[in-house]
This record gives sequence, C-alpha cells and structure tokens, in this order.
Amino acid sequence: MRPADRSWLLLTGFVLLYVVYLLFGALVFSSIERPVEEELRRDVDALKRRFLNHSCVSPAALDLFVGQVLAANRHGVTAHKNASAPSNWDLTSAMFFANTLVTTVGYGHTVPLSNAGKAFSIVYALIGVPFTMLVLTACVQRLMYPLVLAPLGLLQRSGLEPRPAAAVHFLLLLVLVVLCFFAAPAAIFSAVEGTWSFLDGFYYCFISLCTIGLGDFVPGTQPEQNLRQFYQGTVMVYLFLGLMMMYLLLRTFHKMADLHGLTTFLQLPRCEESDPDEDREPIMENGQGAQKQRPPAASEHLAPSSQPSYNSMGAS
Amino acid sequence: MRPADRSWLLLTGFVLLYVVYLLFGALVFSSIERPVEEELRRDVDALKRRFLNHSCVSPAALDLFVGQVLAANRHGVTAHKNASAPSNWDLTSAMFFANTLVTTVGYGHTVPLSNAGKAFSIVYALIGVPFTMLVLTACVQRLMYPLVLAPLGLLQRSGLEPRPAAAVHFLLLLVLVVLCFFAAPAAIFSAVEGTWSFLDGFYYCFISLCTIGLGDFVPGTQPEQNLRQFYQGTVMVYLFLGLMMMYLLLRTFHKMADLHGLTTFLQLPRCEESDPDEDREPIMENGQGAQKQRPPAASEHLAPSSQPSYNSMGAS
Repeated sequence: MRPADRSWLLLTGFVLLYVVYLLFGALVFSSIERPVEEELRRDVDALKRRFLNHSCVSPAALDLFVGQVLAANRHGVTAHKNASAPSNWDLTSAMFFANTLVTTVGYGHTVPLSNAGKAFSIVYALIGVPFTMLVLTACVQRLMYPLVLAPLGLLQRSGLEPRPAAAVHFLLLLVLVVLCFFAAPAAIFSAVEGTWSFLDGFYYCFISLCTIGLGDFVPGTQPEQNLRQFYQGTVMVYLFLGLMMMYLLLRTFHKMADLHGLTTFLQLPRCEESDPDEDREPIMENGQGAQKQRPPAASEHLAPSSQPSYNSMGAS
Repeated sequence: MRPADRSWLLLTGFVLLYVVYLLFGALVFSSIERPVEEELRRDVDALKRRFLNHSCVSPAALDLFVGQVLAANRHGVTAHKNASAPSNWDLTSAMFFANTLVTTVGYGHTVPLSNAGKAFSIVYALIGVPFTMLVLTACVQRLMYPLVLAPLGLLQRSGLEPRPAAAVHFLLLLVLVVLCFFAAPAAIFSAVEGTWSFLDGFYYCFISLCTIGLGDFVPGTQPEQNLRQFYQGTVMVYLFLGLMMMYLLLRTFHKMADLHGLTTFLQLPRCEESDPDEDREPIMENGQGAQKQRPPAASEHLAPSSQPSYNSMGAS
C-alpha cells in the first residue's frame, strides 16, 4: 500500500472510531442519566402541584413567574436570596471570571449580560487565551529539567533502558499529579464546601483541569462563605498550577510516545525537540556541557536559517 | 546578562504581566457588568414582590420553592414547562453532551446528576479528550498542504519574500476562518434561534471554538424547535470542523512566529518540524520530489535513533 493511501485509511479509521466513541458515550450517559432525570422531573412536578394547592396562583401565572426567575438565573442573578447576596461582579469574582475565560475553563456560573460585556469578552479572550498558553508554556519550560530530565537521568543511571525509564517516569509523574492536584484538592474542597462529596471534589478538579468547565460545581459561590475573596484567589492559583502540571504531563506523554515510535506509527507530529533552554542550560550549569551537548544534526536545525518545512515551497 | 538570568527575568515579567492582564479584565468586566446586574436584581426583586402581592404565599414558602426550582434547574430540569419537554438525555442530546465533554467545550447546560454519571464522565473524558486531540491533529495534518503549504508556495512564487508571504498567508487564512466559521454561522444561528442577535451568534461561535463554552447560549435547546436532532447533529459537525480550523490557524501562527524569530526571542519551543507527510507527500506527488526535498540536517532528525533531547541525560 502506498504511504498516502495508508495515511488516508488511518484517518478514515480514526474519524469512524471517533463517531463510534461518541455514540458509545451517548448510550451510556443516556442509560445512566435518563432515569435520574425522570425522577427529578417527577419531583419538580410534584413540587409545583403542592405549591399551587397551597397558594391562590393560577398555573399560568406560576409558569410565567418561574420562567422569569430562570431567565434571571441564567444571567447569574438568583431570586432565591435577597439583594444583600454578594455580587457576581465584585473585583475578585470578576477576576475569577476573567481567569476562567482566558484559561478556556469557562464555568458559565457568571456570564456577561450586556452586549458591551459580550464584545469585550471576545476581545479579551482573543488576547488572553494565547497569552495564557504562552505563560503556561514558559513556566512548563522551567519545570522540564527538575521534573522530567533530572528524574529520567536518575532512572537511566540506575540501569534502566531509555524506553522503560520513560514509561516508569511517566507513571511516577502521573501518580504525583493525581495525588497533589486531584486527590488532595478534592479532600480540601469536600471539607470547605459543605455540600460536596469527595467524588464531587475530584470531579470538579478533573472537569476544571481538562478545561471542560461544566460549571455544575464552582468553589466559592455559596453566599455564606467566610474569606470568600481569599478562597477564590487560592482557587485561581490552584487552577493555574494545575493546568501547568496537566500541560507538563501531556508533553511528557508526547515525548514518551515519540520514543516508543507511536507518533511515527500514527503519522502524527512529534514533540518539539528544539527547546532552547529546557535541557541545555541546566546541563551546562552542571559543568558537563561538553559531554552532554546535542549531536550536530539537531543543533544545526536550531539556527533560524535551517527551517526547511515552511520554506521548502519557495526555495524551488 | 547570562542566558539563564535573562530567561528567569522573562518568565517573571510574563507572570507579572499576566496578573496585571487579569486585574485589568476584572476592572473592565466589573465596571461594565455590575450596573446591569444591579438592574436585573432590582427587576427580580420587583417580580417577587408583585408575585407575593397577588398570591397568598408567605415569602419564606416562596423562597423555599424558588430554591428548589433553581436546584432542579442546575441539574438541567426546568420547572417552567410540563414534563412533555424533550429530555436532556435522549440519544442525540447525550451525544451532544459527550461531544462537548471530549472537545473540552463543556457548556454545562446538561450535567450528569448521578455519582455513576460523574464517575463515567471522568473516565470517558480521560480517554476522549486525548482521542479528540489525536483525530483533530490527524485531520489538520491533511489540511496543511492545501491550506498552508500550497498557498504559501503560490505567494512566494508570485515574488514575495518568505516572511511577508507567511504574514499575508496568515491574514488571508484568518479572514477565511472568521467569515466561514464565525460570521456565516452567527448569521445562521441568529436566524434559526429566535432570541439570538447576530452578536449573540458570533459570541456563541467564539466562546465555543475557543473551547471556553460558557453555556449561556447553546443551540438546539429550545423545546419548540423542529428537527432538533438533525440541528444538534449539524452543530456537532460545525464544532468539529471549527475546532480543526482553529487548530490549523494556531499552528500556522506558530510557524509564522518561528519564522519571524519570535519563539526564539521568547525562548519558547518552536513549532514541530518533523511532520512526516504534511509537506513531503504532496510534493513528491507533484513529481518534483528531488528538487524540493529537505536538507540532510532536517531529514536526519526524523530517524528515531537521533532524538537527543529526551535521551541526552542517559547518553552520558
């Protein structure tokens, strides 16, 4: 089979498998959630009937009222408590919103109400999302030596071959991230937020750090909480550090996949290899620069002049 | 200044600037949205007072009722209409939910209610999110030649230098994406969804394709819509194609930044250069393979044996 044919076949297979995966998810979610939803619906209907029996309101008037209450709620204003509840747009809450916007988590527990707010959200995210990626990348760059290259070197010096060393290192990093950025925060959230179970906390951490951000659980939104502003600030720092670790994990996985020939097999781009300071500087600081420097082939393509893939069309 | 010092200074500057950017966003959002929120709050208070005057319900009973209605609404069950409204968990809606989960858009208009649903969401996204990235990457790979390399070659053959050609090409691609994946869908959404303005549609497209997914606007959730399942399916296809184009745009921008020396200046990783088929195969198909092949330095580092950055620690 020609490589081009194989590549198209692989792509078609990928896309088909993807649709099957979505269908499978739909079937499972539907079978798990539908009975629970029906029960909740029956509860709500009973609630409405009970309420109508004990009041002199017509069903139509109640429906109108409920519709308006829900519309206000969609915009983050709850009719449940009186107006003394904290604003969704005080400085800390607005910063929390800005943070969920630029990290693409986007809980949606608060949303801009005005056209000006929507337009500003677009412009703000347009600059903010790439900026966040830039800052995260720059931070991850600094963590590559202490968290990836140094432990890998240690594993290899202790006698492991490169491939098993990479796998062992990835597993260790995974356990570290799960413990420090999922399990421990989940325990803290379930203690601080009265109504959250440990699973709720874990689910919140996962949904947030994957930047899915469903918004069914958002910390620091209950009106009675003390030190709400400090708490929201801490959550912002947690989100940033967590996203950094997720990115580091992803990059380590990508590098491991390169090493195992997985990316070549699937005809995908390999992990970038030309990071100017992630592995070079610390090595030179160790005073072993000459010994550990890259082979010439790789160093050469660091120079701006040798960038063939982007220029190759014009060079002819 | 030593390169290591400069690099740390750059990082600190980045992080500080990032905090300032968040603070700036918070100030603007707060000043735009707070008056609107206060007005909506006053409206809701007036609505409640009016409702209480025309019924024989106590304020406490109403508060309890509203609290329960809002709690059910958080779980996607609205007390507004009767139980004949379409389920959030029929097969198409569940597939739509699965799709927003694995693409990390996560509107949160429907959320799993049960513990089993939450646990399955975690497992499903754990596999689904990387899988989606894989499928998107594989698709973008196929689009690199027709949408990036071929037009770039055309621009360069028409006499432009590589750098201006890259900038012109990026701008053209940007205009194409904005027209086809933001403006046109926004016009369609504002026509199909009765209550959406064009800005609402544009805002929805932007918030979705950046995977922020606030969920204040979600197409196909109004109960009266005809062909709802077909409509939701179309939106899923739109989201997939849109994400693909956003990824392509990001990669093109990254390559342009490489070419302009921006990534080297900011000490960031460069765009991967070793995509096995994005620029090679089509060139060979054109019968000009020998003329346009990569220089040896770049080809060499395609071979699995020459991967210095990951192995350099162990090689010593």
